Amino acid sequence: MTNSILNNPTEIFTPEQLLEHWQGHRGLTRRVIEAFPEDKLLTYSIGGMRTFADMAMEITGMTAPGIRGIAFGDWSIDDPAIGFNAPTPASKEELLTRWDKVTELLCSIWPQIPPHRFQEHDVAFGQYAGPVYGTLLYMIDNEIHHRGQGYVYLRSLGIEPPAFWDR
Amino acid sequence: MTNSILNNPTEIFTPEQLLEHWQGHRGLTRRVIEAFPEDKLLTYSIGGMRTFADMAMEITGMTAPGIRGIAFGDWSIDDPAIGFNAPTPASKEELLTRWDKVTELLCSIWPQIPPHRFQEHDVAFGQYAGPVYGTLLYMIDNEIHHRGQGYVYLRSLGIEPPAFWDR
Repeated sequence: MTNSILNNPTEIFTPEQLLEHWQGHRGLTRRVIEAFPEDKLLTYSIGGMRTFADMAMEITGMTAPGIRGIAFGDWSIDDPAIGFNAPTPASKEELLTRWDKVTELLCSIWPQIPPHRFQEHDVAFGQYAGPVYGTLLYMIDNEIHHRGQGYVYLRSLGIEPPAFWDR
Repeated sequence: MTNSILNNPTEIFTPEQLLEHWQGHRGLTRRVIEAFPEDKLLTYSIGGMRTFADMAMEITGMTAPGIRGIAFGDWSIDDPAIGFNAPTPASKEELLTRWDKVTELLCSIWPQIPPHRFQEHDVAFGQYAGPVYGTLLYMIDNEIHHRGQGYVYLRSLGIEPPAFWDR
């Protein structure tokens, strides 16, 4: 721990505020999924990149086991329906159902994160060593990164994406 | 202030850790700028979107006055060379020079942010009311969002972008 934590902690935002921020992002990503015509969601690509459905599945596949690892330190937990190796659904509706399942999971597990976990070191997903807050930020940043790519897909299809600032 | 702040503050990460995280992102964005051939940086677009040079200028134009507003509460500060209305440079080298100037500015001003500022409410840029931490996250998230778009530009040009996880 740093001196700052021991002597003079700075709460940049509370865990509740960070969850609200993340769920705001997740709501926007959900609207980006909805904005795609179903066939383009499942098949459209630029430059050999993945479809937006595949990117959305990466996000849910990381978030569902990830939030449990962050909270409980057990990275072996996985759920075949929404975890790492879940196949990409064949419909927009099924993808949105999985998305909503992860949203609920996040809301139910988040309050169980012990405050000291954020600064602990761990090996995320059994592979990535670092502070737990870093894993958490990685998951949020990765969602923003891929959603930004979805914006280009939509624009190239002549579709106006939902506003970035509207969460 | 919430009870959490008064009674049991949770330091998810220290201000120093958040700056390091942001500067890691800024380093990656700089490498994305560098990865573009100069003419494509200044002219290439998909779906009627802006060039990546214009997006990078939005990022620097928000960050430079933004960090001073966050630290000092004075949103009127602007620098014609790097602020809101600065024209997009005509060369990659000049864009990178501006980028580096903002990186230095961020490092010099960040330690001057009073800890209580993050939870204060303010009207960012004289226009956007909300907590200061929200403005800060907006600036970081906006950079990730546009950089993700730059990845699609690069891939569509047949250029491998720098790895997202490498900061």
